[in-house]
Amino acid sequence: MERIAIIGTGLIGGSIGLALKGAKLPEVEIVGFDLDRGTGGEAKRLGAVDRNAPSIPEAARGAKMVIIATPPMAVGTVMQEISEYLAEGAVVTDTASTKVEVRRYAQEFLPEHVSYVGGHPMAGKETPGVKNADAALFKGATYCVIPSAQASEGAVRSVLGLVNVLGAEPLFIDAEEHDQYAAAISHMPLVVSTALFTLARNSPAWDDIAPLAAGGFTDVTRLASGDPRMAHDICVTNTDAVVHWLDRFIEELQRYRGLIQSDRKGLFRAYSEAQLQRDAFVLGEKPRRKVEADLPSTREQLSGMIFGGLIASRMEKFEKEMGQAGGAKRRSVLDDDD
Amino acid sequence: MERIAIIGTGLIGGSIGLALKGAKLPEVEIVGFDLDRGTGGEAKRLGAVDRNAPSIPEAARGAKMVIIATPPMAVGTVMQEISEYLAEGAVVTDTASTKVEVRRYAQEFLPEHVSYVGGHPMAGKETPGVKNADAALFKGATYCVIPSAQASEGAVRSVLGLVNVLGAEPLFIDAEEHDQYAAAISHMPLVVSTALFTLARNSPAWDDIAPLAAGGFTDVTRLASGDPRMAHDICVTNTDAVVHWLDRFIEELQRYRGLIQSDRKGLFRAYSEAQLQRDAFVLGEKPRRKVEADLPSTREQLSGMIFGGLIASRMEKFEKEMGQAGGAKRRSVLDDDD
Repeated sequence: MERIAIIGTGLIGGSIGLALKGAKLPEVEIVGFDLDRGTGGEAKRLGAVDRNAPSIPEAARGAKMVIIATPPMAVGTVMQEISEYLAEGAVVTDTASTKVEVRRYAQEFLPEHVSYVGGHPMAGKETPGVKNADAALFKGATYCVIPSAQASEGAVRSVLGLVNVLGAEPLFIDAEEHDQYAAAISHMPLVVSTALFTLARNSPAWDDIAPLAAGGFTDVTRLASGDPRMAHDICVTNTDAVVHWLDRFIEELQRYRGLIQSDRKGLFRAYSEAQLQRDAFVLGEKPRRKVEADLPSTREQLSGMIFGGLIASRMEKFEKEMGQAGGAKRRSVLDDDD
Repeated sequence: MERIAIIGTGLIGGSIGLALKGAKLPEVEIVGFDLDRGTGGEAKRLGAVDRNAPSIPEAARGAKMVIIATPPMAVGTVMQEISEYLAEGAVVTDTASTKVEVRRYAQEFLPEHVSYVGGHPMAGKETPGVKNADAALFKGATYCVIPSAQASEGAVRSVLGLVNVLGAEPLFIDAEEHDQYAAAISHMPLVVSTALFTLARNSPAWDDIAPLAAGGFTDVTRLASGDPRMAHDICVTNTDAVVHWLDRFIEELQRYRGLIQSDRKGLFRAYSEAQLQRDAFVLGEKPRRKVEADLPSTREQLSGMIFGGLIASRMEKFEKEMGQAGGAKRRSVLDDDD
């Protein structure tokens, strides 16, 4: 029997366990551990692990692969705890949302006789906990793979095998690049989504405002329901990049503020471009979404020529309609009635 | 036969038509009109209207009720066009997202022998067009009802009947209050969602960033895919309130920026409170969402005492864990190996 250890069996670790168990790998035992005993028991009950180890070191002892699926800052603590118990040639990987700081933990705490290969599955849910775990959570998702300089080729292949079992697509990337890009597309949006919720929620008018909430507000504030420890750790281990993108986002909001106040044509153009570009993005990135009949194909949409043509014809229609509305002048036939 | 006219048979008008037709009201004919002939034809084909009128005046002529389901600024144009064709005692309503400016159109353009009752269903989709229309779109949604001072009691009852057929919940509200609250919970989030998308999309690093996009980014930027004319009209007819809330939102982002840079405990507390409050909001406002087993009931969550207790126990656990991680000191047993 070969042993795979999963340390932290919440939403992510639990989902990995379910996918590994679902693959029915012969001669593989999945051993779990979670600081929260209830989570550990639930992971066992749901079939995400074969058994729970009594401690972090016991989970790691003798394992071929150790998967650390905890919030970023806890990865360092776990690495310290398992360090002296790791088998020769063991593969250590993690699923943390930030990779530079975690690589530093690995350099500082892991022994030289193991291979560290960082990982980050670009998938999740706002509902944390093993009860929301799902073997299909990572299907079709990008899975960032960041081998350390010392990682063996076999270790990298093992992590690619894990990615394959999860049904995800591996993407090799530098830790620094990862943290910059993830700040833009994942970490800063988390702050924005949470701030949008707390601004409304903490308003003295909340009781009057809330009844008007519809699906838009619920969706845009979805990330506020995520695990607060995870959100905290992400911001703390990627502070500079998150702050950089927050500042740029505030500038972008100021740009829209200016358009709203004094450039209606520019405002319509901005919304038009955003709509076409986002539809192209969603169609391109998420091919499972049903293609809308009256949209040109993604390839066509992405072509600058066609995009330019669409915008031009929309702007023309817009200006014509605005001309007609023209300050809401009364029609002459009605003036006769006055 | 009594006639109901729907002017603008896109997502909203088309969904109202489908719901009205689904109710199989005896002796009622639904007549539609849409500036886009393709949309009109599709509304007929989908069964959202019984027939299409050849023009806006012809749709309104003799109708008992006229439902204007166009972007806000087009409501004024339509009101001008139908004014002289409206029957004595006709009810005119609309579905526009802003109500103060639209009330001004009604005051200016509608004759005294009709009743205007403004409406705003708090429901929608980011995918516009009659092809996405759905009779159940408004089920359980709040439907703001804003009668004009001159509206007859019968007219208000007629609009309440429409709300009832749609399966929505009527909410009487002032036009000014509506526009302030909607700015906070709907209009400003639309700007934020779009700006979040365009910032990433227009970054020179977009091609590298996009592969890391997951469900969070897609959800939070969802409103960028809405109808640009609608978004434009909303911002233009509710400028002051949208700008007010944008400014407050920028302040909220600056608050998070400060927490990220220099108050980790405050940051964790902010995320913790946001999570508990949003879960309570979602459970309270959207009872159809499955209740999570380990959450206290909404009533309990909303109780300040229990909420305070949850936050306190989380803060305690957080501080204990941070103390353990404590700058990621090596355990003494490992120091021995050095």
